[in-house]
Amino acid sequence: MPEPMFSRAFLASSLASDTAMTPDPDAFLKERSASATHRVDEVPLNALPGWRADDAIVHDSGRFFSVEGVSVRTNFGPVPEWTQPIIVQPDIGILGILVKRIGGVHHFLMQAKMEPGNSDLVQYAATVQATQSNYERVHGGRSTPYLDYFLEHAERRVVFDQLLSEHGDWYLFKRNRNMIVEVPEDEDVPVAEDFTWLTLGQLRRQLQRGNRVNMNARTVLSAISYATADGPAADDEPRDPFHRQVVESHTVGGEDAEVSAAITWLIDQKAKYTLDVRRIPLDDMHEWVRGTDVIRHLEDRYFRIVGTSVTATSREVSTWSQPMLEPTPGNVVALLCQRQSGVLRVLVQAMVQPGLTDRLELAGTVHLSPGRYTGPEDRPPLADYVDAPESWVRLDASQSEDGGRFLRADTRHLVVEVPEDHVVQAPDNYRWMTLGLLSRLMRAGYYVNIEARSLIACLL
Amino acid sequence: MPEPMFSRAFLASSLASDTAMTPDPDAFLKERSASATHRVDEVPLNALPGWRADDAIVHDSGRFFSVEGVSVRTNFGPVPEWTQPIIVQPDIGILGILVKRIGGVHHFLMQAKMEPGNSDLVQYAATVQATQSNYERVHGGRSTPYLDYFLEHAERRVVFDQLLSEHGDWYLFKRNRNMIVEVPEDEDVPVAEDFTWLTLGQLRRQLQRGNRVNMNARTVLSAISYATADGPAADDEPRDPFHRQVVESHTVGGEDAEVSAAITWLIDQKAKYTLDVRRIPLDDMHEWVRGTDVIRHLEDRYFRIVGTSVTATSREVSTWSQPMLEPTPGNVVALLCQRQSGVLRVLVQAMVQPGLTDRLELAGTVHLSPGRYTGPEDRPPLADYVDAPESWVRLDASQSEDGGRFLRADTRHLVVEVPEDHVVQAPDNYRWMTLGLLSRLMRAGYYVNIEARSLIACLL
Repeated sequence: MPEPMFSRAFLASSLASDTAMTPDPDAFLKERSASATHRVDEVPLNALPGWRADDAIVHDSGRFFSVEGVSVRTNFGPVPEWTQPIIVQPDIGILGILVKRIGGVHHFLMQAKMEPGNSDLVQYAATVQATQSNYERVHGGRSTPYLDYFLEHAERRVVFDQLLSEHGDWYLFKRNRNMIVEVPEDEDVPVAEDFTWLTLGQLRRQLQRGNRVNMNARTVLSAISYATADGPAADDEPRDPFHRQVVESHTVGGEDAEVSAAITWLIDQKAKYTLDVRRIPLDDMHEWVRGTDVIRHLEDRYFRIVGTSVTATSREVSTWSQPMLEPTPGNVVALLCQRQSGVLRVLVQAMVQPGLTDRLELAGTVHLSPGRYTGPEDRPPLADYVDAPESWVRLDASQSEDGGRFLRADTRHLVVEVPEDHVVQAPDNYRWMTLGLLSRLMRAGYYVNIEARSLIACLL
Repeated sequence: MPEPMFSRAFLASSLASDTAMTPDPDAFLKERSASATHRVDEVPLNALPGWRADDAIVHDSGRFFSVEGVSVRTNFGPVPEWTQPIIVQPDIGILGILVKRIGGVHHFLMQAKMEPGNSDLVQYAATVQATQSNYERVHGGRSTPYLDYFLEHAERRVVFDQLLSEHGDWYLFKRNRNMIVEVPEDEDVPVAEDFTWLTLGQLRRQLQRGNRVNMNARTVLSAISYATADGPAADDEPRDPFHRQVVESHTVGGEDAEVSAAITWLIDQKAKYTLDVRRIPLDDMHEWVRGTDVIRHLEDRYFRIVGTSVTATSREVSTWSQPMLEPTPGNVVALLCQRQSGVLRVLVQAMVQPGLTDRLELAGTVHLSPGRYTGPEDRPPLADYVDAPESWVRLDASQSEDGGRFLRADTRHLVVEVPEDHVVQAPDNYRWMTLGLLSRLMRAGYYVNIEARSLIACLL
């Protein structure tokens, strides 16, 4: 269970809509963005400097990541068998946010960071976002600021620390270490260029506007819990009625019995669905065309693998080349919520994704990828809620996926609250859960997928 | 957290050394063993009826399991790179024990079960031990008794339910669903032939004698916790001083902060050690000879893959053939314990094994496999404690590994309690933990490996 002390502090921070530390978060982003130059060009995949394309696309150093083929068989979903390219990155990176009480309110040290794949190139990132290759300085770049706060955590207050999965459709077995570490109020933390302290209330606003808080920051933020033993104090009550429901939902369902029942249900789902994934040479993929410039699906569905050349002045090294995965546009993830017996619950589904470490995790209510469907008859269950009446929509914002690997990968995030008397007909692999329960499951490891966590972060 | 009610009931049961339900557990096993005929013959691997040997050895139905090759790279341990055969069984089987309060004491419904690989062929097994192929009756055998208690658990009291890993050196990604389900006192449970109710005290005795409680029962039993909020009541105090220490150790270290600190330490270990596993055709293995009869290591180290033909009257079907893995003899697992600040702690290590779902889990203090070492200079850290003075030894018993897949795989289980003033020098990937902490980690998923759980079961 998260420490109640932090829950209360985070809730107070989420109600602080501004701070003298960063009077204008929009202006800060804009200013940092203007102060650096960035340029992302598409270049032929087979002529990427530093990379070899053979059975797989690998870096000359053997580090960073590779693009390989997989053959997948599953009884989940409409397609029983397919092949696809996938990004393999077995290292464990660190995504860490430093928090510190400043003027009585907890602040989060965020970084204005350029990522080549983001539509809005510069967004708020975690304090540290470092692959293992990064922090071991394989490419001889600049050292990662603030890294020691997370590597040498023995004397620190670790608020959250867990391995959490990333996009199981695009990454094989990828997970990162998500950390929140508190610095004592009296410890001086120098604020480097590109960094600034934000309250959670400011981050909420940025999240609601979309494309301003990057994926790696969202996954860490999703670990924040408002659960307290005795509910929010009167002066902690959010005035916004939906936010109040969210906070209440955090305080319910985190009991051991609820967690056990949810795990039992999840194991039932794991036993029902099969998944077999084998790594194969890129040339053995059916339905994919391996050109010299790109790897693409025969019918241009799903995504492409492209080569990029990046030049920047605000990153560890100033020029590099790398393959990236560019999804077909139009992806939507949606979370259905409903007040049930006085508590807000969200509808999650047990979803198999080929790259997940243990077959399936909890996903949002709807994953809608136009690239996956040939017509409206192929739409997944509950997809119609994406077109819910405007009065039901609590959040509608575009968010960037990991801009270090995915090119122009914007996903529309939707949170829809259906009225209490509305009946949702969901298949067996769907289940209503409180945010308190989801938070407990997240702490235990690989139970909640990145798409669901990203939606949960948007609800903070 | 386990429900304290069960902790107290299980502790009381562990102090009940006999019961009218099964006056003589030894005689029951012996009698069931005599009442059935079993015969296990080695047959050539390439002529196993029902199996095809090609890139892998697979069953004609495509079900059950396969024997495949893997190529492994890791920076854990002395060998950086190797190939080996491995058993692939992605299905999720059920290992379930029914418990019921009878005459005021909780009893466990155990089955006298023949398994072809066991040295003592018939041993106490869980109430249900069924692969998915088993319970979906792929081979058209008899239905599995008591299975519905576990499949239809919605109305039942589920005491424990979690996916737990199995031998990561011999299985790829294998895990089973471990369940303990309570039947209400007033519900009649017919006792089928081969089944009998035992107290935990009787099971303890059987575990201490060795080769009488099979691996699948041991893994379920390891989930039993004696943790209560307020410690054992006076009349629950075990008289045996070591047993009393074990029970006390169950009540300490299960707090959330301890669990979080242990997970943080484990993630540190996961970030330190690398593991890359690829499935390869059996013929691509180096250092292994693929004969028509067996697959063996060039120097006859590690293990062999052999063919077996089994005839039995006490199993679902009476005759079948299957490949089995036969380890080189002499394997030892040992757990070091020490009373520290008044509480018994055990020394576990973070150990990489190629078949684990997420790279590494907690293992016992020593895994000693003579097949792995060419001389005494290759012995793993702390291996000398296997030869500890007799006065330190709390348990020394041979236990069978899964007799459905492993042939003559007896592992010596050692529990050694070092004196309080003895200093143990352990490498960084070792850590002292209470049984209460290990129990909490087990509940969260893939944190404690089968070898460690088997040792913990022997400590009950």
